[in-house]
Amino acid sequence: MNPITEDSAAQALTQAPAPRRWEAIASELRNDIVEGLLAPGARLPNETELAQRFGVHRHTLRQAMQSLVREGFVQVRHGSGTYVRELVLDYALRRRTRLTQNLAEAGESASRELLGAEEALAGEWAAPLRVSPRSRVLLLRTRARVRGRVVGVTESAFPLPRFAGLAEAFAQHGTVTAALAALGVPDYTRARSVIAARLPTQAEADALARPLTQPLLVVNYTNCDLQGVPVQAASTLFAADAVQLTVGPDDWDAA
Amino acid sequence: MNPITEDSAAQALTQAPAPRRWEAIASELRNDIVEGLLAPGARLPNETELAQRFGVHRHTLRQAMQSLVREGFVQVRHGSGTYVRELVLDYALRRRTRLTQNLAEAGESASRELLGAEEALAGEWAAPLRVSPRSRVLLLRTRARVRGRVVGVTESAFPLPRFAGLAEAFAQHGTVTAALAALGVPDYTRARSVIAARLPTQAEADALARPLTQPLLVVNYTNCDLQGVPVQAASTLFAADAVQLTVGPDDWDAA
Repeated sequence: MNPITEDSAAQALTQAPAPRRWEAIASELRNDIVEGLLAPGARLPNETELAQRFGVHRHTLRQAMQSLVREGFVQVRHGSGTYVRELVLDYALRRRTRLTQNLAEAGESASRELLGAEEALAGEWAAPLRVSPRSRVLLLRTRARVRGRVVGVTESAFPLPRFAGLAEAFAQHGTVTAALAALGVPDYTRARSVIAARLPTQAEADALARPLTQPLLVVNYTNCDLQGVPVQAASTLFAADAVQLTVGPDDWDAA
Repeated sequence: MNPITEDSAAQALTQAPAPRRWEAIASELRNDIVEGLLAPGARLPNETELAQRFGVHRHTLRQAMQSLVREGFVQVRHGSGTYVRELVLDYALRRRTRLTQNLAEAGESASRELLGAEEALAGEWAAPLRVSPRSRVLLLRTRARVRGRVVGVTESAFPLPRFAGLAEAFAQHGTVTAALAALGVPDYTRARSVIAARLPTQAEADALARPLTQPLLVVNYTNCDLQGVPVQAASTLFAADAVQLTVGPDDWDAA
């Protein structure tokens, strides 16, 4: 937790709790959780200790905590204390697997960011895309966050020239589904997912903002258009402290 | 690799290669692989070095290596050397998931061993089995090996009194499928699988014969009889260096 200035502490000690003060406290605690300084499952200091640390009245502190409870960052276990909530998302592998929709069903909204886009030889992506290794693909690297916390990074390959302009479409629309639709693929289905687990490399741990000791769930998959032609081959690295995968009869049954 | 006796070395140096000598060398190398002294992906010393170490003619050593290649323990990369084969099994999650059948499709045969069986309160197994937490279950701990190497351990809970005698049936028949059939469940389907990854505890690492740094793929699942009544709730820990999970359209389509 960051030290507070004397000014803001003095300001918070006025009779009526200053709305901006509890918001600033909530924001500081939220950042500590997002950045992992307060780890999932960690017990927060009690209200009296936190009020002293921030130099505010307990009533002000309670407002900040109630805000964090509403946002799902912390949970109160009665008689025990307040804890940083574990962020474990159920990610359903199904015929139509859509990251954004998946997280919406789990009651979460994801933000996606574009980390990079480049053209390259198909190489290792040739087999899943069923193209020549000497043909070209567009490589897209994206990162997904839920409640500010990174949950996964994805590297995707799209065959060229069919999907020239996809990076711009993704940047504009924010999802692969919308970007593919903008380029004439109204629907697609998942051909196969292969799931593995391993420890991350340093670069992967950095991208996921996790320690080197946090295992990854690796999902390699191919999506095909309704004619069965591969449109995307991809590898998603999920931080396994945040995501678990589900496979169920609803998904087996789905038409 | 274990030291060899002078007797056996002398025996191996006769003109005609003694069949027992190359078999003994193959057996020692096989044990080193199974026990992890020679790790997956490790490059073996070249033929000349190994022949010297075992005190045999290169022809004898080559017989041992050819045997290990045939058995799938090592592979020759031409111009590079001989390597311990990675053991990565594709384990398909589908409506009818059967460990033994799954591995047979991957060209492997699994051996199962019963680690333990005991009666207990349903507790945490109550929810997936849809029984009272105060009811009783039979807990079964089993371990699966492929090519001698442990690939997974499973803890299963079966509701009692329905499945009294299941431990004996498993010991007799060697598979859960056959044991359930012997107790009047001719067929069952998987209701749901939840897949997670984490590092093992010391006990789990010991059971899997893996280091504490080798992540696990954890699959929690429930199997139901054809009336939809849960017959087995289970948690399988796969060593992630040996197993990857697959989910595909064939499985989504399967009736």
